[in-house]
Amino acid sequence: MTKTSTGNFFEDFRVGQLITHATPRTVTAGDVALYNGLFGPRFAVQSSDAFAQKIGYPRAPVDDLLVFHIVFGKTVPDVSLNAVANLGYAGGRFLAPVFPGDTLNAVSEVIGLKENSSRKTGIVFVRSTGYRQDGGKVLEYVRWVMVRKREEAAPTPGDHVPRLPEALLPSMLGDACPRIDTAAYDFALAGSPHRFGDYAVGEKIDHVDGVTVEEAEQQIATRLYQNTARIHFNQFAAAQDRFGRRLIYGGHVISLARALSFNGLANAFHIAAINGGRHVSPLFAGATVFAWSEVLAKADLPGRQDVGALRLRLVATKDHPGADFPLKGPEGDHPAVLLDLDYWALVPK
Amino acid sequence: MTKTSTGNFFEDFRVGQLITHATPRTVTAGDVALYNGLFGPRFAVQSSDAFAQKIGYPRAPVDDLLVFHIVFGKTVPDVSLNAVANLGYAGGRFLAPVFPGDTLNAVSEVIGLKENSSRKTGIVFVRSTGYRQDGGKVLEYVRWVMVRKREEAAPTPGDHVPRLPEALLPSMLGDACPRIDTAAYDFALAGSPHRFGDYAVGEKIDHVDGVTVEEAEQQIATRLYQNTARIHFNQFAAAQDRFGRRLIYGGHVISLARALSFNGLANAFHIAAINGGRHVSPLFAGATVFAWSEVLAKADLPGRQDVGALRLRLVATKDHPGADFPLKGPEGDHPAVLLDLDYWALVPK
Amino acid sequence: MTKTSTGNFFEDFRVGQLITHATPRTVTAGDVALYNGLFGPRFAVQSSDAFAQKIGYPRAPVDDLLVFHIVFGKTVPDVSLNAVANLGYAGGRFLAPVFPGDTLNAVSEVIGLKENSSRKTGIVFVRSTGYRQDGGKVLEYVRWVMVRKREEAAPTPGDHVPRLPEALLPSMLGDACPRIDTAAYDFALAGSPHRFGDYAVGEKIDHVDGVTVEEAEQQIATRLYQNTARIHFNQFAAAQDRFGRRLIYGGHVISLARALSFNGLANAFHIAAINGGRHVSPLFAGATVFAWSEVLAKADLPGRQDVGALRLRLVATKDHPGADFPLKGPEGDHPAVLLDLDYWALVPK
Repeated sequence: MTKTSTGNFFEDFRVGQLITHATPRTVTAGDVALYNGLFGPRFAVQSSDAFAQKIGYPRAPVDDLLVFHIVFGKTVPDVSLNAVANLGYAGGRFLAPVFPGDTLNAVSEVIGLKENSSRKTGIVFVRSTGYRQDGGKVLEYVRWVMVRKREEAAPTPGDHVPRLPEALLPSMLGDACPRIDTAAYDFALAGSPHRFGDYAVGEKIDHVDGVTVEEAEQQIATRLYQNTARIHFNQFAAAQDRFGRRLIYGGHVISLARALSFNGLANAFHIAAINGGRHVSPLFAGATVFAWSEVLAKADLPGRQDVGALRLRLVATKDHPGADFPLKGPEGDHPAVLLDLDYWALVPK
Repeated sequence: MTKTSTGNFFEDFRVGQLITHATPRTVTAGDVALYNGLFGPRFAVQSSDAFAQKIGYPRAPVDDLLVFHIVFGKTVPDVSLNAVANLGYAGGRFLAPVFPGDTLNAVSEVIGLKENSSRKTGIVFVRSTGYRQDGGKVLEYVRWVMVRKREEAAPTPGDHVPRLPEALLPSMLGDACPRIDTAAYDFALAGSPHRFGDYAVGEKIDHVDGVTVEEAEQQIATRLYQNTARIHFNQFAAAQDRFGRRLIYGGHVISLARALSFNGLANAFHIAAINGGRHVSPLFAGATVFAWSEVLAKADLPGRQDVGALRLRLVATKDHPGADFPLKGPEGDHPAVLLDLDYWALVPK
Repeated sequence: MTKTSTGNFFEDFRVGQLITHATPRTVTAGDVALYNGLFGPRFAVQSSDAFAQKIGYPRAPVDDLLVFHIVFGKTVPDVSLNAVANLGYAGGRFLAPVFPGDTLNAVSEVIGLKENSSRKTGIVFVRSTGYRQDGGKVLEYVRWVMVRKREEAAPTPGDHVPRLPEALLPSMLGDACPRIDTAAYDFALAGSPHRFGDYAVGEKIDHVDGVTVEEAEQQIATRLYQNTARIHFNQFAAAQDRFGRRLIYGGHVISLARALSFNGLANAFHIAAINGGRHVSPLFAGATVFAWSEVLAKADLPGRQDVGALRLRLVATKDHPGADFPLKGPEGDHPAVLLDLDYWALVPK
């Protein structure tokens, strides 16, 4: 019996299948420090125990995206080791704050399958859920990914494409954010005077700064999440591949863009939900990443006066500053665009 | 109203102005580990809780320079985002030890302004103070930096150049170092038998080793301090700049040289004060950094028998070992010199 | 008196000499996080406090190899600063688990010396022991290393070559592993159903994945262990050397190969002993490391029903996948082989 896992191929999945992913992971202050060194986020709530405690957290919570990447990483060996492309996200919700010392594990349910007409690949839809050591849910999200078939002739079950929400409803937001004391929220320490009321639907913000990505950084980050997708690590194999280079984990772009977005969104301290997202083009080491945001919508949270939700489009680009808000070109996507992410962030009122 | 900060320009500063800097930061064992991985310091007091406790600390304190960089990093978005050059430091004093779990924030006072004759730039002098969560001061220092004007024609207040101390007096040293039990200080474990009495004024020490700097290292380090100076991160912009490359944060050189100085100064475990310092030339990734030291002076600390203070010149060079103690050339600074730092270190008697 | 240590040369060693190495080091969750980011191990026991506690540990222990590297690093300034080559290991035993918060220090005894016929170098055999802050031993191992003489003419004591065990006896294994509750060991969470009984002597496992090494990674890792061997850090000097490049610490290869071996050996969670090992060829940044294993032997541990021991050969290669299990070529070692390591791992029964 072979001891080595080669991951699942398209024909191995069944709708309704539950997959318990390997390697539970205790998140520590060490992970947080490394995340800070790799991305440089400056949101005060995650940066300072004192700040977080003052507004109502027991201590500084772990960055939402670090939680996302750790949960995502666990799903890779079972879901996307044989993936051609990570196609999209939907219905992502942060359900409880995570603190250093918490242990995360993940379970995925296959919620849809659709073979491609080539019969060489198919699309797998999974709902992945991250759990804490006590069984509490911390995160759930849907992603769909194009996965190779082991054998082109292999029979596959009939197609089932799940209905996915376009965006989370405001009533579904905020579970991971305790009621905060906005009077104790120090806007000077947080780095910006702008509250929920200061943002307008349609407003676009160029986050100005750019950051160049190094190969060592992307490898360290991706290993930190125990993400085993070989395309991020194996230059020997990549040299023979379509790109000829190691491809950077899409989540790396999300974290870079989110950290850059501090300059303009300093008080949008919590990602409450990921409505959708698309990795528009691949990123390779040596490129410089820029970001801009657009306020797509604003919403009150039922029963809460402390925070409101901004629905934000976060666009990341490569080697192209955000000043002209690049998104679409004459023939579809603007060639500089890396990421088009749609999320809800909470902002003090 | 624009949400993005473009930082202050020379004409935005006023003498006496107080600036509360953003993003308080809880320092953790994770930050210490990353600092260790990036610089490799080996001073026993900061490396070992057991060693530190034996001599009188409650536990191993955070490396003085990590504290310095974190406080410095906070000042960047307000003070030096539009800087042309970081010109110098003076009057730096470490006032209390910092331990993992402490939260740091920073406030700067503008203490001097001097427009340059070109009218395109001016020099801003700030005294920056780092505070702990309980309001205790942990560090203060003065730096001056050449900052661009937004508009050449903008009126500026009259010049005011502060008087700065050439060096800290011995009576001002030691607040961040508890009285230590020198009988319990294990010189074998610390890596050297040399005590305060073994050093002589005028003595020069070549620290022998060299360390090559990688782009990923300098980015990870500088982000760890939440230092946002774009010249360290943005190759896209740097390519169009005078250097064509990302410039390495001057503090990176200080930390590299300090770690190298262990070989010769193993018991100079605490930086009590930074009398002055100058970044003599820029450093870029790929160069190898060497260091040498000279004992400029020795002093007793009033009322203390446990430690004495060595006033040290720490010189860092690039691609030039320290064996010939390079400092000056026929036309001014020796071209290999990166850093000329003047500081007080405490050494057991 | 010179303050700078240039390390010991061959003629400075004496059989029976005890060397207390410098710089005790408190291991923290930060070190663990950085180790995870650099190598990406996925063994559940070390990754999750919850998993470790369930089977009988007080919390997740520190990765065995991180302990090894920290102890090894301490010995470098005294033993191998003037080494030409690290020749081999024997008799390595892990004697107690290490947890974050423990402080490690190291002592070496010189147990053998043998001058080479060239009279320019000699082989130094040391038994190095790692201790915890309470004096408990956590690790001991023998290594031998070829060290330069300061002066070719220097007299040296007569040769003494120690007798070394070929492998540790099963009765000497397991001190660092508490009795575990195998019923509570969740094989799904651990990532593989394979227990001790599922492995057969002679079985070979290709670990499939490859990982490319970056210069920044090897420097950060090696500094994390306070390993000061200059060949890993100083490109200025290396450029004039036989390789022209920085050489990667041999322990880096061990950690990469061990992390890759998870795919096939997910439940071999603890390295109980290192029987021997040889760095067959040097590794430089840019190469991609692969690994394969062979089960050399199996053993019960006297009086223990919870775990058995697999004696494993772990072979690492560069730019050559493990599918054909490269080891020997027509003229000795296969040119792709980097490492040939022989160790005992514990696996639940």
